Amino acid sequence: MQSTIKFVAPFVVILFLLFPKVIIASEKEEAVIADAKLSPQTQACIGCHSLFTPGIVQDWLSSRHSKTTPSDALKKPALQRRVSADIFPDELSGYVVGCYECHSRNPEKHKDNFGHMGYRINVIVTPNDCKTCHPVEVKQFSESKKAHAIKNLMENPVYHTLVSTITGVKKIEKGKIISEKSSEETLHETCLGCHGTKVDVRGIKKVFTKMGEISVPDLTNWPNQGVGRENPDGSLGACTACHPRHGFLIEVARKPYTCGQCHHEPDVPAWNVYEESKHGNIYSSKGSTWDFSNVPWKIGQDFKTPTCATCHNSLLVSPDGNMIVERTHDFGSRLWVRLFGLIYSHPQPRSGNTTVIKNKDGLPLPTTFTGEVALEYTIDKSEQDKRLDKMHNVCTGCHSTDWVNGHFAKLESTIKEIDEMTLAATKLMEEAWGKGIEDKTNPFDEPVEQMWIRQWLFYSNSIRYASAMTGAPDYTTFKLGWGELTNNLINMRDMIDIKEENKRKTK
Amino acid sequence: MQSTIKFVAPFVVILFLLFPKVIIASEKEEAVIADAKLSPQTQACIGCHSLFTPGIVQDWLSSRHSKTTPSDALKKPALQRRVSADIFPDELSGYVVGCYECHSRNPEKHKDNFGHMGYRINVIVTPNDCKTCHPVEVKQFSESKKAHAIKNLMENPVYHTLVSTITGVKKIEKGKIISEKSSEETLHETCLGCHGTKVDVRGIKKVFTKMGEISVPDLTNWPNQGVGRENPDGSLGACTACHPRHGFLIEVARKPYTCGQCHHEPDVPAWNVYEESKHGNIYSSKGSTWDFSNVPWKIGQDFKTPTCATCHNSLLVSPDGNMIVERTHDFGSRLWVRLFGLIYSHPQPRSGNTTVIKNKDGLPLPTTFTGEVALEYTIDKSEQDKRLDKMHNVCTGCHSTDWVNGHFAKLESTIKEIDEMTLAATKLMEEAWGKGIEDKTNPFDEPVEQMWIRQWLFYSNSIRYASAMTGAPDYTTFKLGWGELTNNLINMRDMIDIKEENKRKTK
Amino acid sequence: MQSTIKFVAPFVVILFLLFPKVIIASEKEEAVIADAKLSPQTQACIGCHSLFTPGIVQDWLSSRHSKTTPSDALKKPALQRRVSADIFPDELSGYVVGCYECHSRNPEKHKDNFGHMGYRINVIVTPNDCKTCHPVEVKQFSESKKAHAIKNLMENPVYHTLVSTITGVKKIEKGKIISEKSSEETLHETCLGCHGTKVDVRGIKKVFTKMGEISVPDLTNWPNQGVGRENPDGSLGACTACHPRHGFLIEVARKPYTCGQCHHEPDVPAWNVYEESKHGNIYSSKGSTWDFSNVPWKIGQDFKTPTCATCHNSLLVSPDGNMIVERTHDFGSRLWVRLFGLIYSHPQPRSGNTTVIKNKDGLPLPTTFTGEVALEYTIDKSEQDKRLDKMHNVCTGCHSTDWVNGHFAKLESTIKEIDEMTLAATKLMEEAWGKGIEDKTNPFDEPVEQMWIRQWLFYSNSIRYASAMTGAPDYTTFKLGWGELTNNLINMRDMIDIKEENKRKTK
Repeated sequence: MQSTIKFVAPFVVILFLLFPKVIIASEKEEAVIADAKLSPQTQACIGCHSLFTPGIVQDWLSSRHSKTTPSDALKKPALQRRVSADIFPDELSGYVVGCYECHSRNPEKHKDNFGHMGYRINVIVTPNDCKTCHPVEVKQFSESKKAHAIKNLMENPVYHTLVSTITGVKKIEKGKIISEKSSEETLHETCLGCHGTKVDVRGIKKVFTKMGEISVPDLTNWPNQGVGRENPDGSLGACTACHPRHGFLIEVARKPYTCGQCHHEPDVPAWNVYEESKHGNIYSSKGSTWDFSNVPWKIGQDFKTPTCATCHNSLLVSPDGNMIVERTHDFGSRLWVRLFGLIYSHPQPRSGNTTVIKNKDGLPLPTTFTGEVALEYTIDKSEQDKRLDKMHNVCTGCHSTDWVNGHFAKLESTIKEIDEMTLAATKLMEEAWGKGIEDKTNPFDEPVEQMWIRQWLFYSNSIRYASAMTGAPDYTTFKLGWGELTNNLINMRDMIDIKEENKRKTK
Repeated sequence: MQSTIKFVAPFVVILFLLFPKVIIASEKEEAVIADAKLSPQTQACIGCHSLFTPGIVQDWLSSRHSKTTPSDALKKPALQRRVSADIFPDELSGYVVGCYECHSRNPEKHKDNFGHMGYRINVIVTPNDCKTCHPVEVKQFSESKKAHAIKNLMENPVYHTLVSTITGVKKIEKGKIISEKSSEETLHETCLGCHGTKVDVRGIKKVFTKMGEISVPDLTNWPNQGVGRENPDGSLGACTACHPRHGFLIEVARKPYTCGQCHHEPDVPAWNVYEESKHGNIYSSKGSTWDFSNVPWKIGQDFKTPTCATCHNSLLVSPDGNMIVERTHDFGSRLWVRLFGLIYSHPQPRSGNTTVIKNKDGLPLPTTFTGEVALEYTIDKSEQDKRLDKMHNVCTGCHSTDWVNGHFAKLESTIKEIDEMTLAATKLMEEAWGKGIEDKTNPFDEPVEQMWIRQWLFYSNSIRYASAMTGAPDYTTFKLGWGELTNNLINMRDMIDIKEENKRKTK
Repeated sequence: MQSTIKFVAPFVVILFLLFPKVIIASEKEEAVIADAKLSPQTQACIGCHSLFTPGIVQDWLSSRHSKTTPSDALKKPALQRRVSADIFPDELSGYVVGCYECHSRNPEKHKDNFGHMGYRINVIVTPNDCKTCHPVEVKQFSESKKAHAIKNLMENPVYHTLVSTITGVKKIEKGKIISEKSSEETLHETCLGCHGTKVDVRGIKKVFTKMGEISVPDLTNWPNQGVGRENPDGSLGACTACHPRHGFLIEVARKPYTCGQCHHEPDVPAWNVYEESKHGNIYSSKGSTWDFSNVPWKIGQDFKTPTCATCHNSLLVSPDGNMIVERTHDFGSRLWVRLFGLIYSHPQPRSGNTTVIKNKDGLPLPTTFTGEVALEYTIDKSEQDKRLDKMHNVCTGCHSTDWVNGHFAKLESTIKEIDEMTLAATKLMEEAWGKGIEDKTNPFDEPVEQMWIRQWLFYSNSIRYASAMTGAPDYTTFKLGWGELTNNLINMRDMIDIKEENKRKTK
């Protein structure tokens, strides 16, 4: 420790030289930061980092964390409270939530903990660290499908095959396409960009920085903020996926762009459908005048139309404070049916870890290829009704009961029709497999198979999403909707015939 | 009536308990609502609905309707007036435009009128109701193509076949694709989402609400706000398509997101082309600082670049108040040529009801399949010139005459070239039909036919739109433009050859 | 001159009548314009144009030009200065930068100079005119690839063939597709809309305006603001491509919509990738509260996440004023590798004029069709390192060194993999050419060739862009990424086989 302090000495000087400037910056942010509220450790962090990574420091200055001590946060009435812990570690409660408060939590669990300028620092702040103040949110999240996003993708043999098929580099050998194993880098930039990477510690390495050479943990698959990231402390998830560093603004999480980063066309077109919907139109036209920071969030007063968070996550009350729906960080907990995720729609799975599922074909999938649901792994009718009721409650914040009933009846009809359309495509696919026109061993790596994928992964998802979100009729008709669904089905039929004829002739 | 009052009694209590809260909410909106200006009936509506659908009430509080009585609206100078009636029914003129004022109009015409808590209420407010204060706008709209949007689509045998082909659920029977009749629900979520549904009354039904069981009209194809909706009072259209409930803000109608809900890629890419244009760029960059509410709308002062409404609808004046162009709610009335709608461009039709047209092939289409225009149903040169002149006037609000001339000359060249490209694709199509490679009986349900559709419905439309809107060069080149137009034509040629050869071999 | 003055006389009267109104307008803009600061000539311009093109005048009133004299602009401290000249022509320095100040520069060089209401006016203000006050920016720009955007496209035989192939009108003659020469109008609306047109003067013509008939230069390919426009004074470029008339707001140039006009999917999806990235999400969520006008631009304080300009152009400083990176108008000068432009990635070319390049095949391309780089025309390792270092500096404004290193290592891996994927597609293409299945004479006009184009022009570009911009994982996976790259490669293989079989059978 002594030796580190020596090393730090010159920075302490810098710290004192710089600190006034930080305060100046914060005045520009119209924030009043009482010096006394910053822990001495955080003051040291800021001393250097306002020189070396000033953007982060400024972003933090714009956060609520930089202005609030946990003990102040607790003083709010229950519904307005943004922390869910009732008690905090002594060393935290009197200081605002600064660099050190977060980056020094649970060092014993953090394989990425390292000595840095005389302090023990974790590179990555994980859900297990955020849990100190936000335990309810972390618990809900940890049980959700999102927390298991890596495993649910990569340990599902069907999806894993799809991942490998599309992300492996291809070479041509004697005219044939040979696919290599997907690289870590490409997995990281594609599927795992959203699902999350496994961040592990390989050891310690030296990096050359503006401050000179320093030693830092050597992390795998870093940087990444995928929602199901596997962290060096063993925890699952990255809160920063939706609450980006270091402003952590609830406003950002509540705006649709955040969800839209991953929930984007063509496979999960939630953002695109929302943007074309009436709700999205009003949001785009008037949203800049609404209050996206208020807790609890008042329907009609703080905002006039929902964003993703309104329906799926946020604590909502009426303008006179009556509870409409409770906050949740289990993003499936208000959903009764799963519109995407695999081939056919199905009741939401019981567990956020979907690898435990076994369907009739013995695969860890919620339905068989022909649509039969693995009922013992999915929620039952009474749970479905309870969840539908929650969502119903959100809608009737603005719409009449009859209106909302009409909406959901239409959605139910669409789900049924789209599952039938998927079955039609699957039947053509089975014909192609049965006749040896394409080879089912890998069900995703030939032309007709690729057409079949589009049918359920792109077009069916789009139509179901648009139906669920009260409509984006142009999207549902031509963009990635019924027009493509029909066109692609017709083309599957034709391509099977052409390939069959070709096969016959070459014999 | 007596019996209803009894039923209502408990709500009267609630009303008195709640009303102060409503006023509190409106203070937050910085609106000063004098109690006296709300009709007693509207007070009763708000009493309950601020409890049961608070979002609607809050939205209405943000509207101009909630703050203005018709008689006040009349006091403005003519150009600033937002109502076009000169006189109002006595019972309306002294109250702000509240729930009851709109939802109780013309009850004798409304099949959807029902007894609700002691009042006779229409579920749907229709153009015929809005006409009370906005007669000029409703008349203009009622004669437009938009008001006839259902009929123009569904009673046009060519388009109707396209609608059926793409929206019917498909089944596979003995390896063949069999298409079922499109369901009401899917029509509603696709084509009729924008064009409008037929909302009829099947009778009265009971629904279970937060207030208990109530009786309401049993409506078909509801909820819907398609622009040509057929209403239970026999009127055509939904003002709410562009002026969404219950804020009715002119600001929303003037922003491009509203038009973009339906005028979206790939078939009507007005929004997408605008977004990529210079006008759209400046709007996105600076639009949040402009005044979208002012009437009349001052070029250069209220806004710096046009949105859709500027060119197609709004009353525009120069900063010193000189009229540039009059307001219109007939959205085609400034247009001389129809860029989309069918296969080839053509002069705008004379009537908003396009089903009256008969072309040389006897079809209700403005051109034949080879491009010959049904001249007696389309506007003549002199009317075209008059309309072009109006649009010219809008453009010269900011651009020099020579600039504008150059722009329109370019558009004319593009229209001509694109019609030639469409003709080329049609010739290939006719070859395929002539050789029996595909079957013209349904001209839309086979692979080459589907390629032909794309040619005129997606790519040709896109290029014409981009040309008309002063450019989105990337869109016109690669997105859905010349690149696709060429690629698809080449592929049509190849696919016809492949299918012909296959046909020959299987003989 | 006498005769012109006579002609102008009535306008002088109008001028005096109108001028007060202009001042009223400017008050609304909260700008205080001292009459004395407008040159007499500019006062005359405004006198008429506030009547005839009021939008332009209002837009100019919102500009910094309308409020600043060159001599005032010089008084700012060096880093805050928005002009790079040290001295100005006497006639300019005391007046704000009005109509006449810009439209009368260098008349002897302007073939588009003409007599207009008693003044000699240039229709087009060119980089050579802007150079009067902004010489450093113009010099940087003039040496960039952007300034040579027409030549680099149209004098590159490979790209020129692609341009002609897609933009020529096609006719069907005896069942064959015959392509005509691309029209000037269509070139203008497609490729040259972004790259720029050649604006030349054919003579003088009369136009009929609201003021009556006037004589103006007869310009070719006008209006156009393409970034590499060839101007009637011989200069290259249009500053208005990014600084649109007549507000010239730095705010617009710094917002991503400006770059997005041309850098849009599917071929150059910079905007689309940004929009889906974390940076883009935060920009969309919070950008409206940031300062896009400040010079120098303070990281973290003026803005929290980068836009295009941040990384590629702007002068950046830390909140306490330390230089992070200097301003540049050579848009490639912070780039070490060229991610798009031709088939394979390669080091940035040495000269902005890429037609000087000769690769091993003798073509003016930076790589051969199989990826070999023309090293003597591209920057060397040490220059690459210098540029990478600049970009590194921008990133470490907010991110740790290790984070940034991890990002760039991932990009490097992706570039390598994508070049391999392109090579695989090229090998299939060469098989098709070698077997006579398609004809290499024009390498872009047949179906498999069109598939090959997509491979490198759409999908490869998209993946490299997404990687470079810290990710848009959904884009990289399914939108135009690995999913399409794989699907299209598989389809190339299949289509070659089908066409080969067809060819064999027809023999």
